[in-house]
Amino acid sequence: SLARRCHHRPTAMLDVPFPPFCAFLGALGLLCVAMVGTWCQHWRGGFSLDGSSRTFNWHPVLMVTGLVVLYGAAALVYRIPNTWSGPKLPWKVLHGSLALGAFVLTVLGLAAVFRFHNAQGTPNMYSLHSWMGLATVLLFSCQWAAGFGAFLLPWAPTWLRAFYKPIHVFFGSAILMLSVASCASGINEKLFFSLKNGTTQYKLLPAEAVFANTLGLLILIFGVLVVAALARPSWKRPDSDSLDSRQVQDALGG
Amino acid sequence: SLARRCHHRPTAMLDVPFPPFCAFLGALGLLCVAMVGTWCQHWRGGFSLDGSSRTFNWHPVLMVTGLVVLYGAAALVYRIPNTWSGPKLPWKVLHGSLALGAFVLTVLGLAAVFRFHNAQGTPNMYSLHSWMGLATVLLFSCQWAAGFGAFLLPWAPTWLRAFYKPIHVFFGSAILMLSVASCASGINEKLFFSLKNGTTQYKLLPAEAVFANTLGLLILIFGVLVVAALARPSWKRPDSDSLDSRQVQDALGG
Repeated sequence: SLARRCHHRPTAMLDVPFPPFCAFLGALGLLCVAMVGTWCQHWRGGFSLDGSSRTFNWHPVLMVTGLVVLYGAAALVYRIPNTWSGPKLPWKVLHGSLALGAFVLTVLGLAAVFRFHNAQGTPNMYSLHSWMGLATVLLFSCQWAAGFGAFLLPWAPTWLRAFYKPIHVFFGSAILMLSVASCASGINEKLFFSLKNGTTQYKLLPAEAVFANTLGLLILIFGVLVVAALARPSWKRPDSDSLDSRQVQDALGG
Repeated sequence: SLARRCHHRPTAMLDVPFPPFCAFLGALGLLCVAMVGTWCQHWRGGFSLDGSSRTFNWHPVLMVTGLVVLYGAAALVYRIPNTWSGPKLPWKVLHGSLALGAFVLTVLGLAAVFRFHNAQGTPNMYSLHSWMGLATVLLFSCQWAAGFGAFLLPWAPTWLRAFYKPIHVFFGSAILMLSVASCASGINEKLFFSLKNGTTQYKLLPAEAVFANTLGLLILIFGVLVVAALARPSWKRPDSDSLDSRQVQDALGG
């Protein structure tokens, strides 16, 4: 309780509690999912599995839902104060399950774009967007597998968990930053592809362009706010092996 | 010294000191600047002020140099341990001057693309890249002006500085994330514009595309590493009004 009290001191004047901020992030995330679905349904012809551009449309929807919103939810689990006491295992399972759900949607999102490209005879993996996106997904797969092996399987020694934890935390934020940057470049590129001719040219800024540009900005804001929430010291779990409680113990004992 | 010692404990096994990491970041930043210059010089026809695409070429060079690399250098000033003792003013002036240099290059970078668009009769500000980029520059101008007013001018009261500081720190990282996301979408879009016809199509992945895609990934890695360095607790200045020393003082006194 000493640690908790001190913990909140230096940012006292800006001390938003986590739950309402998290509710706001949840609403923003749902808005992004609704908007990417609306974009593909209303302006891009909807969804199908036939290899046409309606198959491609699953790509942005699954990526925003999985690799941004559900990934963000998974990342924030340990910022819920309820997770700080009592048994850790249920929260680990929740964190791992949300991340697994995000990963499954992400792989389906990749499958959608590869199926579309292959059906159209378009090469895969040439644009910077595709390189960024695939690097993000590869890092995410390593992150999930290493997290599962180190934190959920029972045989990892304590020193390995302690060694790997800051690495897992670093890549948790790094992958989200790469993910939202990939989304922004993907939306930008899709609008240049789709709005080429006639009266709906991208440069004439039709309603679709305003809508999807706004979606891109909201995804970036979501990513920045999740990364900032993850970095905020006063929202971190005061772990038995963390900075805060150690520091106070040391100070009290020394 | 108690605070310093405790400070480094929890990440002891990964305890890279700041100076070599900073040297690595400096080399990576210089590589990005060299690569964006090489891209524009070698593949995009070099530089001029005549309103042609050679005027546009100043845009990526100035943005990567100003809004990514010099901005990153400005952001990291207070992570240099030398800044933690002695008078603050010289370091504040260095931080503000580097940021001002970054801002001037950024404004020139904007001027280059507006001049190019206007000379070619292309509309400005329609793509998601342009929206992201302009939002980033507007936030940066507010950040610089507010930082100058609150921290460098002598008349800001202490409570205002204490109130504004975490906001300035938050936007410092947020602007850099937006900046690197803007660079990635800009490089992606420029390659689609430039590599359209003949044997140099983007989808055939010519040498220029591999080079510029690699540049995009390096810029993202630079941004992620700077944001991570800024967030790392053990590299933060142990301020008189910060979490760490307060916490120890409170613990010792309580």
